[in-house]
Amino acid sequence: MYTKDIHVVKVEEGSIVTPKGFKTAGVHAGLRYAKKDLGVITCDVPASCAAVYTQSHFQAAPLQVTKDSIAVENKLQAVVINSACANACTGAQGLKDAYEMRALTANHFGYLDHHVAVASTGVIGELLQMDKISNGIGMLSPINSNEAAKDFQTAILTTDLVMKKACYQTTINEQTVTVAGAAKGSGMIHPNMATMLGFITTDAKIESAVLHEAMKSITDVTFNQITVDGETSTNDMVLVMASGMTDTEQLTPNHPDWDNFLLALHSTFEDLAKQIARDGEGATKLVEVNVTGAMSDDEARIIAKKIVGSNLVKTAIYGADANWGRIIGAIGHSDATVNPDIVDISIGDIQMLKASQPHSFSEELAKEYLENKDVIIHVDLNLGSGNGTAWGCDLTYDYIKINASYRT
Amino acid sequence: MYTKDIHVVKVEEGSIVTPKGFKTAGVHAGLRYAKKDLGVITCDVPASCAAVYTQSHFQAAPLQVTKDSIAVENKLQAVVINSACANACTGAQGLKDAYEMRALTANHFGYLDHHVAVASTGVIGELLQMDKISNGIGMLSPINSNEAAKDFQTAILTTDLVMKKACYQTTINEQTVTVAGAAKGSGMIHPNMATMLGFITTDAKIESAVLHEAMKSITDVTFNQITVDGETSTNDMVLVMASGMTDTEQLTPNHPDWDNFLLALHSTFEDLAKQIARDGEGATKLVEVNVTGAMSDDEARIIAKKIVGSNLVKTAIYGADANWGRIIGAIGHSDATVNPDIVDISIGDIQMLKASQPHSFSEELAKEYLENKDVIIHVDLNLGSGNGTAWGCDLTYDYIKINASYRT
Repeated sequence: MYTKDIHVVKVEEGSIVTPKGFKTAGVHAGLRYAKKDLGVITCDVPASCAAVYTQSHFQAAPLQVTKDSIAVENKLQAVVINSACANACTGAQGLKDAYEMRALTANHFGYLDHHVAVASTGVIGELLQMDKISNGIGMLSPINSNEAAKDFQTAILTTDLVMKKACYQTTINEQTVTVAGAAKGSGMIHPNMATMLGFITTDAKIESAVLHEAMKSITDVTFNQITVDGETSTNDMVLVMASGMTDTEQLTPNHPDWDNFLLALHSTFEDLAKQIARDGEGATKLVEVNVTGAMSDDEARIIAKKIVGSNLVKTAIYGADANWGRIIGAIGHSDATVNPDIVDISIGDIQMLKASQPHSFSEELAKEYLENKDVIIHVDLNLGSGNGTAWGCDLTYDYIKINASYRT
Repeated sequence: MYTKDIHVVKVEEGSIVTPKGFKTAGVHAGLRYAKKDLGVITCDVPASCAAVYTQSHFQAAPLQVTKDSIAVENKLQAVVINSACANACTGAQGLKDAYEMRALTANHFGYLDHHVAVASTGVIGELLQMDKISNGIGMLSPINSNEAAKDFQTAILTTDLVMKKACYQTTINEQTVTVAGAAKGSGMIHPNMATMLGFITTDAKIESAVLHEAMKSITDVTFNQITVDGETSTNDMVLVMASGMTDTEQLTPNHPDWDNFLLALHSTFEDLAKQIARDGEGATKLVEVNVTGAMSDDEARIIAKKIVGSNLVKTAIYGADANWGRIIGAIGHSDATVNPDIVDISIGDIQMLKASQPHSFSEELAKEYLENKDVIIHVDLNLGSGNGTAWGCDLTYDYIKINASYRT
């Protein structure tokens, strides 16, 4: 029997500038009253890159500009991001402004226009204050330090309560390769303060096309498997830049250490995704739903996301109420294949449903478990070998409070 | 030009026994502490009938029994309903109990087994207390009075705050034909107190197959277009019984007065559906979303339901916040065809978005409008001629309160 060790280590103190070749900065451009609101990540060399974008029909202007940049030669040397204004639903002027933001950044650093990506997050339907953007870009002096990374992590936040970053290392051709990231998002959308953004850096040596395939499939099982309120923003984007500054062979799926790289990338994505779910608007808990025994991984993921996105499941978990009927409700409602007579459900280690019929359990122990900060639900459909996971949070009074008077 | 008048009149004092041939009763069988919990509608003759059922994978036992009854000869003479226990996720014993409930009812009234339909609503995963069901059925003495109708309307409620009934009359072959109904439901699901149920009576003369086609298409634009929390219960059912006791020609789509009948049926369904949406758990407002200019009616309905089901739209309306960005978010997220550059949005008469760009409006007047008990949102996609409407309610602190500790 052939077995293989896959090694990945979490680097607690790491940040987006831990991978070789990256620098960053975050400044207060004056788009917000006091908080930092403009950030940049730069790379010493044109980096391989790949991105995924919101599925919304309404894609904001900066996404179009970023797509346009990447299309030219699949290389990026900088990504510039502002918070406070999403530059969405802003028509021709908005698009012009996003191109101008790209040109100003390219000019400031002496890069080619098409080596610069642009992202925005904030209020929908308002134009960027280009004088402030222009001034802010002039103030950007990226360096390689964790302090600068903190400035960047802060500059991209909107309603988030905490900064989100992750860093993992692995070994490729006996060299250390690092993957790191920063993210924002605390609802899948808060239009008028929208967006989930993820920026990933790595010093792996990899072609853009290969990187794109890897990041797409990992996004499907990480960022696309979190839900706070079932909504999608106009500005969502996840962007990966690979400097290639480690002295290894080119990474491809045929490389003997490919699985190491994939796991490092996966770990970074999943870590950031879970941080976003945990920081969901008003949330007090991270909820993880594992579905096994589905007809396919796709169907398992669909059901997991349905459960974690159910308002009734979310409120029951907020109330530490072991209400498995709501999980049945969410499963029953999905398009995936289900045999309604053979489903098992556990919350934590406590089995509540066996072969679709109630399994007696201690309500007291269940309540105790549900009062944890992390709640895991396990559903076994007992049909096939498909597995999938989704993450979310509970639905609380504070969600209503935050969103009932968001703009006022 | 040929025009046609379609006449339907709402009968405020009408109830399920206003159509000729029907009687009803509601009693306290002891399944709940004090409230009435068992009801029946009977018909003097075997009535034409048609039903639609929940799409959930987990269909409760009574639904299977009802399907079985109708399959025999498409005639029903009674429907018996209990609240407090849904008889769902109860396996073989649950199915046996539902058949027993049917047999007891048939025996009590001297009807054929397959002329009796069964419905249940309440806690999932618990067995019916058959001794109480049996006693309760023995107590049922249906009569034709609005008081008895009130007893029935009460007996089928769970978390509902108000009874739901409607009655409309129209003219077929110069005879008055009546359609009436009673319903329950205040979330699309409250597992462990589940279910939307609708029971419609009419004295129209119509074959079951024709009735089924009509009720299916009307259900799609009424009961299937309401959402409280996006969930579907294990027990949802809408059942129509037609006594045929008016002296008219058989109703078919070729009958000159067919449109009158259709509108009476439609009005009854829509009226009940809106009552359910308005009584959504914790709701303070009824929200109606009208979508026009879609590629098809189906796509218009999909978008309307997406908007009315968005947590962010629902909380903004609770907060009387004219946050059109959330409507954009919900539209953007749907599978329907959208041109993101030409969408118009109004709330009430106040236009907020024109050709996908902000249209200036008075925040003060918008807030004033949003403080009404009824809020209407209008979205024009400006693409085609498809129209659709959906109804829902706002998302409030009380929804969290009701659902966070439902069982405790």
